[in-house]
Amino acid sequence: MIDIRRFGLSISAADGEARTGVLRTQRGDVPTPAFMPVGTRAAVKAVDPDEVRTSGASMVLANTYHLMLRPGEELVRRAGGVGRFMGWDGPVLTDSGGYQVYSLGERVRITDEGVVFSSHIDGARVSVTPERVVEIQAALGSTVAMVLDECPSGTAAPEDVARAVRRTTEWARRSLRARRNEGQALFAIIQGGVDPALRLTHLGELAPLGFDGYALGGLSVGEPVPAMYGVVAAVAPCLPADKPRYLMGVGTPDDILEAVSHGIDLFDCVLPTRNARNGQAFVRGGRVNIKQARYAEDPSPLDPSCACPCCRRFERRYLRHLYQSGEILAARLLTVHNLTHYGTLMAKAREAIRARRFAAFKKEWTSPSQDLL
Amino acid sequence: MIDIRRFGLSISAADGEARTGVLRTQRGDVPTPAFMPVGTRAAVKAVDPDEVRTSGASMVLANTYHLMLRPGEELVRRAGGVGRFMGWDGPVLTDSGGYQVYSLGERVRITDEGVVFSSHIDGARVSVTPERVVEIQAALGSTVAMVLDECPSGTAAPEDVARAVRRTTEWARRSLRARRNEGQALFAIIQGGVDPALRLTHLGELAPLGFDGYALGGLSVGEPVPAMYGVVAAVAPCLPADKPRYLMGVGTPDDILEAVSHGIDLFDCVLPTRNARNGQAFVRGGRVNIKQARYAEDPSPLDPSCACPCCRRFERRYLRHLYQSGEILAARLLTVHNLTHYGTLMAKAREAIRARRFAAFKKEWTSPSQDLL
Repeated sequence: MIDIRRFGLSISAADGEARTGVLRTQRGDVPTPAFMPVGTRAAVKAVDPDEVRTSGASMVLANTYHLMLRPGEELVRRAGGVGRFMGWDGPVLTDSGGYQVYSLGERVRITDEGVVFSSHIDGARVSVTPERVVEIQAALGSTVAMVLDECPSGTAAPEDVARAVRRTTEWARRSLRARRNEGQALFAIIQGGVDPALRLTHLGELAPLGFDGYALGGLSVGEPVPAMYGVVAAVAPCLPADKPRYLMGVGTPDDILEAVSHGIDLFDCVLPTRNARNGQAFVRGGRVNIKQARYAEDPSPLDPSCACPCCRRFERRYLRHLYQSGEILAARLLTVHNLTHYGTLMAKAREAIRARRFAAFKKEWTSPSQDLL
Repeated sequence: MIDIRRFGLSISAADGEARTGVLRTQRGDVPTPAFMPVGTRAAVKAVDPDEVRTSGASMVLANTYHLMLRPGEELVRRAGGVGRFMGWDGPVLTDSGGYQVYSLGERVRITDEGVVFSSHIDGARVSVTPERVVEIQAALGSTVAMVLDECPSGTAAPEDVARAVRRTTEWARRSLRARRNEGQALFAIIQGGVDPALRLTHLGELAPLGFDGYALGGLSVGEPVPAMYGVVAAVAPCLPADKPRYLMGVGTPDDILEAVSHGIDLFDCVLPTRNARNGQAFVRGGRVNIKQARYAEDPSPLDPSCACPCCRRFERRYLRHLYQSGEILAARLLTVHNLTHYGTLMAKAREAIRARRFAAFKKEWTSPSQDLL
């Protein structure tokens, strides 16, 4: 049964700007800060819902753009909503598709009214408005919906960034008037590129509109890492304190710890799942590329400090063999490990904030360098 | 610890020519008749060892040809043998590679001495003898090793079949003199194409040599199904009654029930795993091709009569979406189901033999036709 208690964040402890608490939703509680595994097409790639849960995740992301094209939002509605459809019994956040549309490049036309693009599946011409994107997310039945935004690239010209900000504000206003489900939360997205002043201006426009949460979009899209860190440091602490703060599409474990230190509550990123499928494992202190010949005879687990089902049972030499042989099981086991690495990182971050030792924890857990082990 | 009690079959009940019992091995007992999932490269494709076990399987097959080329038998030996390497705590049978060599076609040269071929991985010239193939399987540490055989195609000329029989006998003799592990069983392979008389002649040559088990090879290689059934009906009941009887590479659920009715104990086949990856599920009474549009809105489980983890949790409409979207999870869930379908079939066959109602069971479970549902 759906619990229709109000969506909201309770902060239980803070340490500097970092904060920990619980995000209460219709489909269960999410201890924050939290990492949401990416399940673009209503499946977290290569793993099943039990493995997602066991990794420490309590909320997942699915993508509106992909699901509206296949299998179609009305099919998902008839199947009981995206969570039930995919066998995930926790909350689901649906990304609005702004980022995917931006990724389509030549195949998209953006106007003040909305977006027209060609489907990547069959080339069909599809047209969406900010209102329609909210309605689609209502059909998908996600726990948290995102407004449609315009997401310029990390190297966009200032006038393009300014236009994206203006449009995203107007679209956010229109989104609030669209029909959504009882209790379904709606988050706004703050754009503004790498200019902290423009970001704060945008925030100033969006904050009074009273969204259920605020996201930083348009980061990790090609800009230098210090620029991204600069925006997060300047803007995250100014996001409404009583609402969840979500940094979209970020990032590495180091990026996440940096953003948590400035008060971000929610994250999503394809890194742990995508890199797993490319043979790369996140381990304490760095990364392991299981393809490398040095692991051919290595009897250690991927990460000796990890207690995930992959590390408890399988050796690097076997994982390398699976990867080299093209076995699907390699993708799954590395994904299980990487999601557990992220889930454990978030659990330890929450614990460190509660114990008021987050700065020391962050220093200890940040990689000495991005070099591979 | 390895239990070095003697390898052997105990028959506990028979019904006509069908029989049920237990094959005792160093790495655990196998209730027979049994289906062995195929783990060619030391992994049953798309599933993990727990899923293999839960499907009802208690023994798996791995392939000598593939493992000698990658990761190499000495690496597997250092990793503790193929079972430990792949995290499978039950017995493993290694196929000798005769069938794979035959599949190489132009890239192989077979002489009385042995086989020379080019590796499918890097083109390297590899030469093996019957003795060497047994030694490789000793390094792999399999529970049951198979002799190297010559496996002609289903449409081979009579003189080619006769030569394969002669060679396979000589190779079987030489295999017995090769060094293998303490307690490691060795099975002979009977060739002879679709000529029951030649098959019985070959059996007459091999039976006195005292192998630990006897396999029918060279079937399901392109010959008509009735011809295969004819050989099984004529030869299976004549295989040594106190040894395990293994029908290699067979087959559909109907094929298996037919062969069980003539006294076969062991089976392996890629059908449940390969077809799963192609979107085809075996269900009671037929098959489901999950790609088909008719399943797009179907809220039923793959097989309403099945209690596997896939059928308990996921609907056809979601499985079809996963398959259409190219999600790895589709391959895994269909594989879990198909292996459970086979595992359940074998469990029910054993039960029916014990209850002396195998003929009725076979009639009830054999597909009305091979048409898809």
